Amino acid sequence: MAITKPVALNQTKKGDTMEALRRKILSEGRVASDDVLKVDSFLNHQLDTVLLNQIAEEFYQRFASEQVTKIVTVEASGIALAVLTGRLFEVPVIFAKKQPQQKASDCQSETFYTADVYSYTKACQYQMVIAKDYLQATDCVLLIDDFLANGEAATGLMTILEQAGAKLVGLGIAIEKGFQKGGDQLRRSGIKVESLAIIDRMTKEGIVFREND
Amino acid sequence: MAITKPVALNQTKKGDTMEALRRKILSEGRVASDDVLKVDSFLNHQLDTVLLNQIAEEFYQRFASEQVTKIVTVEASGIALAVLTGRLFEVPVIFAKKQPQQKASDCQSETFYTADVYSYTKACQYQMVIAKDYLQATDCVLLIDDFLANGEAATGLMTILEQAGAKLVGLGIAIEKGFQKGGDQLRRSGIKVESLAIIDRMTKEGIVFREND
Repeated sequence: MAITKPVALNQTKKGDTMEALRRKILSEGRVASDDVLKVDSFLNHQLDTVLLNQIAEEFYQRFASEQVTKIVTVEASGIALAVLTGRLFEVPVIFAKKQPQQKASDCQSETFYTADVYSYTKACQYQMVIAKDYLQATDCVLLIDDFLANGEAATGLMTILEQAGAKLVGLGIAIEKGFQKGGDQLRRSGIKVESLAIIDRMTKEGIVFREND
Repeated sequence: MAITKPVALNQTKKGDTMEALRRKILSEGRVASDDVLKVDSFLNHQLDTVLLNQIAEEFYQRFASEQVTKIVTVEASGIALAVLTGRLFEVPVIFAKKQPQQKASDCQSETFYTADVYSYTKACQYQMVIAKDYLQATDCVLLIDDFLANGEAATGLMTILEQAGAKLVGLGIAIEKGFQKGGDQLRRSGIKVESLAIIDRMTKEGIVFREND
């Protein structure tokens, strides 16, 4: 699989954090295929703690007016952004655990909330679980994740929030693949989705970021 | 498996962070068996971001005099402490990825440093991998992890550092099972191991923390 370094196809003027993230995507991201962006150098394997903390501060600003009692994410790549954001809100973070579908039947439904999720990136079905002890009907939850594409993981987490009766405050996302349907579908259903870099088009020739309002 | 809430069998006087961690272990930890301590409410599933940030600040203080260029940990539970510590040092964090042994042969050794690790907790062998791009011979690495028991994960990470030719600065550990051999073996070999809570004995009746020097 040929991996090409993307270049900016449009120039946008944004806040510092959004600009820093876009610049990082352009300088270090690798478009591995039309829908796979590799950002292992700062978000998915090596973590740029300075940039990630800036992103967390931006999430904090965008949701500071809301009452947030818990932050929820999915292991493993979501944990870094979630914990940096949780530190600012001074609220607990819960990371949903992923387990293979075949283990699902062992999982006691008295103890865990569960959701079946299909991963397009890995082309497999898995189950995400959160222990019931940690999510209550009184919780107001901010979901944090590194990527939003078709919205499968987000929908799985929302299913779990519904099971708990917890309120969804919104989603804080580092990179949204705007050419996939997840983000816009969630926005249309009235959910506050804050994505710091929205990619509207991505080919080996380059990346087009969505202009802000 | 009966799970009993531990009680303090000895009283110790420590720094604030160590004391806060010990109190948390005593109030929320569950001794699931003679060598399994469940701390899902604040370290392994739900994350107490205030306490974890305190622990990160303590790691920072203990290693601030050393030159640290990278922090390395293993997914998933190590990521939270590593990224909070990395924020303070303003250095990148790398989290080693775990993959099943059978996938190991697919892994190109030109691209990844690898180490085979046996997990006593999960009773299985796995391979940890770090992309060669992110670790250099010039790196001075602080290893951060939530638990240290037999030292299998730490030894795996050290094997990877050796492959990269990187220097090991030391280990920052939240909870060490002092009754298992890992921590003391590493200390005997001259490695700086800073564990904030060392459990010397752990039964369903209670927990004995190691006294500090």
